[in-house]
Amino acid sequence: MTRTLLAIGIGVGDPDYVTIQAVEALNAVDVFFVFDKSETTGDLGPARRAICDRHIRGGDYRVVEVPDPPRDRAARDYRGAVRDWRDERTRVMERAIAEELADGECGGFLVWGDPALYDGTIRIIESLVERSTLDLDYQVIPGISSVSALAARHRVTLNRVAGPVLITPGRRLARGMPEEVHDVVVMLDSDLACAALRDQDITIYWGAYLGTEDEVLIAGPLDKVIDEIADTRRALRERHGWVMDSYLLRRAVTE
Amino acid sequence: MTRTLLAIGIGVGDPDYVTIQAVEALNAVDVFFVFDKSETTGDLGPARRAICDRHIRGGDYRVVEVPDPPRDRAARDYRGAVRDWRDERTRVMERAIAEELADGECGGFLVWGDPALYDGTIRIIESLVERSTLDLDYQVIPGISSVSALAARHRVTLNRVAGPVLITPGRRLARGMPEEVHDVVVMLDSDLACAALRDQDITIYWGAYLGTEDEVLIAGPLDKVIDEIADTRRALRERHGWVMDSYLLRRAVTE
Repeated sequence: MTRTLLAIGIGVGDPDYVTIQAVEALNAVDVFFVFDKSETTGDLGPARRAICDRHIRGGDYRVVEVPDPPRDRAARDYRGAVRDWRDERTRVMERAIAEELADGECGGFLVWGDPALYDGTIRIIESLVERSTLDLDYQVIPGISSVSALAARHRVTLNRVAGPVLITPGRRLARGMPEEVHDVVVMLDSDLACAALRDQDITIYWGAYLGTEDEVLIAGPLDKVIDEIADTRRALRERHGWVMDSYLLRRAVTE
Repeated sequence: MTRTLLAIGIGVGDPDYVTIQAVEALNAVDVFFVFDKSETTGDLGPARRAICDRHIRGGDYRVVEVPDPPRDRAARDYRGAVRDWRDERTRVMERAIAEELADGECGGFLVWGDPALYDGTIRIIESLVERSTLDLDYQVIPGISSVSALAARHRVTLNRVAGPVLITPGRRLARGMPEEVHDVVVMLDSDLACAALRDQDITIYWGAYLGTEDEVLIAGPLDKVIDEIADTRRALRERHGWVMDSYLLRRAVTE
């Protein structure tokens, strides 16, 4: 019999960002598989638990914590290191599924935000399905990404009329704004790469801990607010031990 | 007293894509304002009604249909024409709100997908708030965009490890794939601009009527499946009178 795996996007921060489809999926899950990485992601564990408590009727599900393999964050070859880490995660997850998920049962992965954006769960499940001798099927439940939440909380659109939007990790921005794209969402930027762009006519919409009670939003001309953002970010990191933020850069264009 | 306006993202197609937050918002609305443009968007009217019927308890809301001003789709200045159209829409909506929404009431706008992506509602509300003599506040409720739905239904990620993603209208793609971005989501492309890229090593993930019972998904090497997509698209447009589709292009890169 087929075992089904569900990658369930649970949105960012606000438990009410969960979709009806995700609620149904949560309730179909027999076993949740969770990588135990509480050290690096701070408060996400409790937030995930809160979503399960709030939306799952009954509560006859099991939670299996799988030890997260160490990741070489100092590696020069960033993508290679991510791939190695993913391979190792796939191996430990494969073992956990074989041991803990029975024939015909449904396994669930809770994914912060949207499984389609900067998350490794889909790739791990793909590798699992390829490698495993078990009969596995899987589905992806989309969620409210931090990109959507950022725009909603700032009450702005991501694109301008007929214009494109680039979503990029911070390290790419170190090369500067793209020439032909004037609206850029930056994710996973531990160094606030945008600080180097203060000489350009750019408006920034920045947000941390989106959708949570700790949410902080700052928006304005980049050169005017970047120092405030940097200071706020530093203070938040000290207070919470971690910071999860993203921002939209909107460059002025004469049309 | 303040009148509140809510731009409510209701996701694409599947009524279960609606978030809990959107359900709460739907239930807070006294008056839904709807541009009457059934001619151009085909089945969206009934789909919106289905979402209200399904998620609103009680049903003591009112629906005000506002005649949608004509839009010059043949204009050379595409963005100028969109702006003119938006200005006219703002004017008629302002009148409707003044006439139909009482002090302290809540007005709602149902937005297909996510209000942040290729939708004019936020801009119309911004203009309304700027222009109006009424005391208006507004909030944006994020939704599952067709970008998220496309990725979820194809069970793929939008980005590759540490890589950027470009979201762009079709007319931009006519200039070719961007040089430094290898994952591109194309929206609003009535001409399948990607057909010109069949000599490149690109995989396409295409979807129409995402999340609905009419959903069609086609994926594969661009040069192998583009004719099938073009044929399918033509047949769907004939059958339904309109087609709403999007696709992800993923170019092979040697890493």
